[in-house]
Amino acid sequence: MAGPKNAISSTVVQRVTTRDARYTLEDGAGSDAIHSDPQYSYAVTQLHGDHGNTGVGLAFTLGSGNELVCQAIALLSGALVGQEIEEVMSSFGETFHAMAEQPQLRWLGPHKGVVHLALASITNACFDLWAKSRNLPLWRLLLDLKPAEVLALLDLTYLEDVLTGPEVLAMLAESALTRSLREGVLTTGYPGYDTSVGWFGYGDERIRENVRAALDQGFRAFKLQVGAPDSDFDIRRATKLRAMVGEDAYVMVDANQQWSVPKAIRVCRELASISPYWVEEPTHPDDLLGHQTLAREISPILLAAGEHLANRVVFKNYLQAKCLGFVQVDCTRVGGVSEFLTVSLLSRKFGTPVVPHVGDMGQIHQHLVLFNHVGLGHPLLFLEYIPHLRPHFVWPARVENGVYQVPQEAGCSSDLKP
Amino acid sequence: MAGPKNAISSTVVQRVTTRDARYTLEDGAGSDAIHSDPQYSYAVTQLHGDHGNTGVGLAFTLGSGNELVCQAIALLSGALVGQEIEEVMSSFGETFHAMAEQPQLRWLGPHKGVVHLALASITNACFDLWAKSRNLPLWRLLLDLKPAEVLALLDLTYLEDVLTGPEVLAMLAESALTRSLREGVLTTGYPGYDTSVGWFGYGDERIRENVRAALDQGFRAFKLQVGAPDSDFDIRRATKLRAMVGEDAYVMVDANQQWSVPKAIRVCRELASISPYWVEEPTHPDDLLGHQTLAREISPILLAAGEHLANRVVFKNYLQAKCLGFVQVDCTRVGGVSEFLTVSLLSRKFGTPVVPHVGDMGQIHQHLVLFNHVGLGHPLLFLEYIPHLRPHFVWPARVENGVYQVPQEAGCSSDLKP
Repeated sequence: MAGPKNAISSTVVQRVTTRDARYTLEDGAGSDAIHSDPQYSYAVTQLHGDHGNTGVGLAFTLGSGNELVCQAIALLSGALVGQEIEEVMSSFGETFHAMAEQPQLRWLGPHKGVVHLALASITNACFDLWAKSRNLPLWRLLLDLKPAEVLALLDLTYLEDVLTGPEVLAMLAESALTRSLREGVLTTGYPGYDTSVGWFGYGDERIRENVRAALDQGFRAFKLQVGAPDSDFDIRRATKLRAMVGEDAYVMVDANQQWSVPKAIRVCRELASISPYWVEEPTHPDDLLGHQTLAREISPILLAAGEHLANRVVFKNYLQAKCLGFVQVDCTRVGGVSEFLTVSLLSRKFGTPVVPHVGDMGQIHQHLVLFNHVGLGHPLLFLEYIPHLRPHFVWPARVENGVYQVPQEAGCSSDLKP
Repeated sequence: MAGPKNAISSTVVQRVTTRDARYTLEDGAGSDAIHSDPQYSYAVTQLHGDHGNTGVGLAFTLGSGNELVCQAIALLSGALVGQEIEEVMSSFGETFHAMAEQPQLRWLGPHKGVVHLALASITNACFDLWAKSRNLPLWRLLLDLKPAEVLALLDLTYLEDVLTGPEVLAMLAESALTRSLREGVLTTGYPGYDTSVGWFGYGDERIRENVRAALDQGFRAFKLQVGAPDSDFDIRRATKLRAMVGEDAYVMVDANQQWSVPKAIRVCRELASISPYWVEEPTHPDDLLGHQTLAREISPILLAAGEHLANRVVFKNYLQAKCLGFVQVDCTRVGGVSEFLTVSLLSRKFGTPVVPHVGDMGQIHQHLVLFNHVGLGHPLLFLEYIPHLRPHFVWPARVENGVYQVPQEAGCSSDLKP
């Protein structure tokens, strides 16, 4: 691993290609109340360097339309060709801004939907090529950066009212003072939680088997998909899960935007009986004020959301509204690692923990939670674990005894097999 | 025009095609502080009926990426083939919902960006084919519908906390009681405002000529693009425009999302000197709470926004937050005529006037403002007028003495020349 920093060699982007990678899941896997037939897919950006290195970037979709994201990558990424990656990353915030604000493509968002997913993929490829060119895993690279170098990775426009550059520098400097207290995680690894015991399409017996296996693997936190037309169905399943895992385990429920605000209030109050650690995506992700009402009405139950919050401006509002107990930002949904870091800094400022949604199956986020904890002082919680695509990654995350082991390979761990 | 209603003939959708229509504008037209080089474009849906009628639907973009919207139309619209248009429109809310919630494509939004623009185009094509098959202009068709038929056009999911079906029926019934008082507009036409006197790329002399011509044409309301890096530039231009048009005319300024919240507060207070009728898109459209802060800080100046608010849920929040003086919903941005009507009903409930943004150059919206005024009881204000694409429409809006004349052709007036 990790050669000395003076081993950095120049890596120039020769060309950009995309790949439309789709994976059919076994029956019922990945299904929830809204997304009944997901085909886990990546719109992949490949930045081909001049020394054989390839930066691989992922944006996550559910299948149909993945090709649109690939095409948007091609429309947005042209300016990277011919650029040296250290140069690009020394002021990546500017590169990010220029792509996000491309005057014609901006109309298609702004900063959301297909074009923003494309930006996520491109951005992640830049970080991957950068880390590979330095021969460092992403977490190590990020932890080695000076505060000013972190700041240069970010686009803070539209955040001026809550987070400025000088504040970012001050937060990083302050976190550095206590960093050594948190570095143990770089040896022990980061705990995971099992999100796959109770997909919506799974029957009771299947869930029982999954929970037994997950307990055997050392997991102590579990997620269940809810949001059935009849809430009795949800309550019954959740009650069974709670009984299976015991009172000391964490149980989270995920409604995947299925409920109206009034229904969410009603069902969340019923779910109080199983003491959920959080209720995820109770209603439409655009309904900020609905979440605010709900958080007030179901207190002390906490809400979690983020997999469909498109950008830092939306997260700013959610944090200002104080309606989330957990921020589930996903670097394959927002504008890649760069905007993930911005949202993590915002969350740190507001005192809200980050527990990423993992469209990347945790491959990139296993690096990012290490940085968030050690580098930013975020609490050590647990990271979502979804095993369905393990066979397709070159370096699948190693989860042992329910704990993500610290990745040692250079880059963002996002290489996919051909 | 308008044959008797029993003349309705069955029209079955034979096939769906798309067209990527792009129009290069003369130098500087359409330019603003953010969008420097627009190529006004339509992602066109064409629903080919079995009697030679073609339903034409528009979604508006600025050029690059328009092809992505066309491809998304193809992905979303397949289920319409073989369906009879009266059947479809008798429960269009369900058809709309099914397309908006397509389980895989939904991930790419939800309800925003490329896939939602595609839904706009498809929806608008359905309304156009419907009105053509009835041989009625859209405004007439909508005004002839019974309240239950209007309700059946809408998808009210995620609005349950503020607008229910029974409320919609009650609002329509109540408006009907006073309808005759407002039907004069169906003879006189609907006033326009000139949005093209002061594009960002126009110099002082060009603006002076434009204003003189617009005054000669009978316009009494004008919009100026602002958002320059140096606000003195904006203030100087706005002051000149106010002097040219006089104290009795309406002057609106449009910052096209250029400002941070702190800068918006500062510049809006300076702009108070020219008494703007509204300040449009002061900052990022996702920054609901930023708009709320701004509205409070610059009162009594009113804000307007909507061209980048993607769907009814976002509008619900903006209305709940009471931060807009004017709702600028655009049926080529939200999910077409259907969601435009939903947002108009929401706005009516909250007592906020609708002054559409016209990505369609006013072609469809000239129908919709007539319905909003006569059918829903919205106040009669003025409709944006942008002449740049007139030569490309088969039935360009007729604006005389600053007033949109009532369109008489069947359909939504959105046919484009080949």
